[in-house]
Amino acid sequence: MDQARPLDALNRGRDKRVIIDLKNSKQFIGTLKAFDIHINTVLEDAEERVDGEAKRKLGTVFIRGDTIVSISLEK
Amino acid sequence: MDQARPLDALNRGRDKRVIIDLKNSKQFIGTLKAFDIHINTVLEDAEERVDGEAKRKLGTVFIRGDTIVSISLEK
Amino acid sequence: MDQARPLDALNRGRDKRVIIDLKNSKQFIGTLKAFDIHINTVLEDAEERVDGEAKRKLGTVFIRGDTIVSISLEK
Amino acid sequence: MDQARPLDALNRGRDKRVIIDLKNSKQFIGTLKAFDIHINTVLEDAEERVDGEAKRKLGTVFIRGDTIVSISLEK
Amino acid sequence: MDQARPLDALNRGRDKRVIIDLKNSKQFIGTLKAFDIHINTVLEDAEERVDGEAKRKLGTVFIRGDTIVSISLEK
Amino acid sequence: MDQARPLDALNRGRDKRVIIDLKNSKQFIGTLKAFDIHINTVLEDAEERVDGEAKRKLGTVFIRGDTIVSISLEK
Amino acid sequence: MDQARPLDALNRGRDKRVIIDLKNSKQFIGTLKAFDIHINTVLEDAEERVDGEAKRKLGTVFIRGDTIVSISLEK
Repeated sequence: MDQARPLDALNRGRDKRVIIDLKNSKQFIGTLKAFDIHINTVLEDAEERVDGEAKRKLGTVFIRGDTIVSISLEK
Repeated sequence: MDQARPLDALNRGRDKRVIIDLKNSKQFIGTLKAFDIHINTVLEDAEERVDGEAKRKLGTVFIRGDTIVSISLEK
Repeated sequence: MDQARPLDALNRGRDKRVIIDLKNSKQFIGTLKAFDIHINTVLEDAEERVDGEAKRKLGTVFIRGDTIVSISLEK
Repeated sequence: MDQARPLDALNRGRDKRVIIDLKNSKQFIGTLKAFDIHINTVLEDAEERVDGEAKRKLGTVFIRGDTIVSISLEK
Repeated sequence: MDQARPLDALNRGRDKRVIIDLKNSKQFIGTLKAFDIHINTVLEDAEERVDGEAKRKLGTVFIRGDTIVSISLEK
Repeated sequence: MDQARPLDALNRGRDKRVIIDLKNSKQFIGTLKAFDIHINTVLEDAEERVDGEAKRKLGTVFIRGDTIVSISLEK
Repeated sequence: MDQARPLDALNRGRDKRVIIDLKNSKQFIGTLKAFDIHINTVLEDAEERVDGEAKRKLGTVFIRGDTIVSISLEK
């Protein structure tokens, strides 16, 4: 299983629950539906968390890539 | 329904009420009329909210894409 | 009336009074005379406002696009 | 007199006294001698002002465009 | 062993444990699996540290390059 | 003597003592030896000043352009 | 000895001990092994200093160019 390119790894997260950490310290948790080379990202069934606490249910959310620090799988 | 590209998902929000969260913590709520690849965005019947409270009625507003954190549908 | 591209919407504000909100929380109010794809913008008969209060009369002012948050029509 | 492009308006300020507002809240006042598409700018007989007070005489100064908020004519 | 290009040096860290320092002062420690020219990076078996203390186990994590200060080998 | 382009003006400062103001409020003073279109700059016999006081002798220093606010001749 | 281009000057620091000042006020000191046009840089036998005090030994470190303020020779 080749993992040479970062976007390939991101692609394996598609349709899975992911945690997106933002530069403003907030988090979005949701199902990864789409991303592009700028790391603009779309989550479904998303919620926003601040300091680990759910703050908003968002449904589908588009996140601008340049605000993103990291994307990881929810455990 | 293919959702592979983030801008396709954004396109399905066209003519719907959306919430735009900005890097400066303000929000714009309005009807999504236009966007481009920089995520420059135009809302109609827009209002600005700060800490959840309506602060200004704006009519049509052009928002520069690089100030945007996220775009979601208003519930 | 097609409004698919954000710059088209901006173009309809030409020669009208607009409010430009900046990232540094200041506002410029003036007559929109010119803009380009970077959203570099020229206002005439402009004034600067801080916290809603007029602070400076500026005549013609060139505003660098990357400092702009939003542009809306003055009511 | 066509004013459709922002840099045309800037060009009419050439050899005139202008006020340049920077993102760090300082101002440069001087005679506009040159600018380019990045809004890199050269002033002659320039001075730096902080909170409206003259702080430094600079002679000729090169200002990097991405630090600039606005450029207007000195009254 | 030629080391003329920075990405060559980074490539020698592949499959090794690395420490990534972020602009927000956090650290990610993990096995370097992938990176690209923007320094977008993928770590496996990663954990997040704040002030030197483990804070989160992350498994596989995608890190956006523009948030990265430095990448070094874990000792 | 044509001064239409900012980099031409900068070029006339070559081999002269210049003051470089940075976004982090520090200054570098030294002999201007080189610059490029990004305003990456090389000074010789340079010193760093903070609040107007000499803080470090640096010899030759390379300064990344995007940290620079302005470059002027030392008087 | 021509020094017209900043990267030429940087190239003369190769295999020498250099001090890299970062935007977050930290310093890296080490042997300059590689750099590219983005000023992405690799140091060997590196250490991190904060307020002039050694804080971490890093061995080989990759530094992302956009975090760098300046690079000078260690005396």
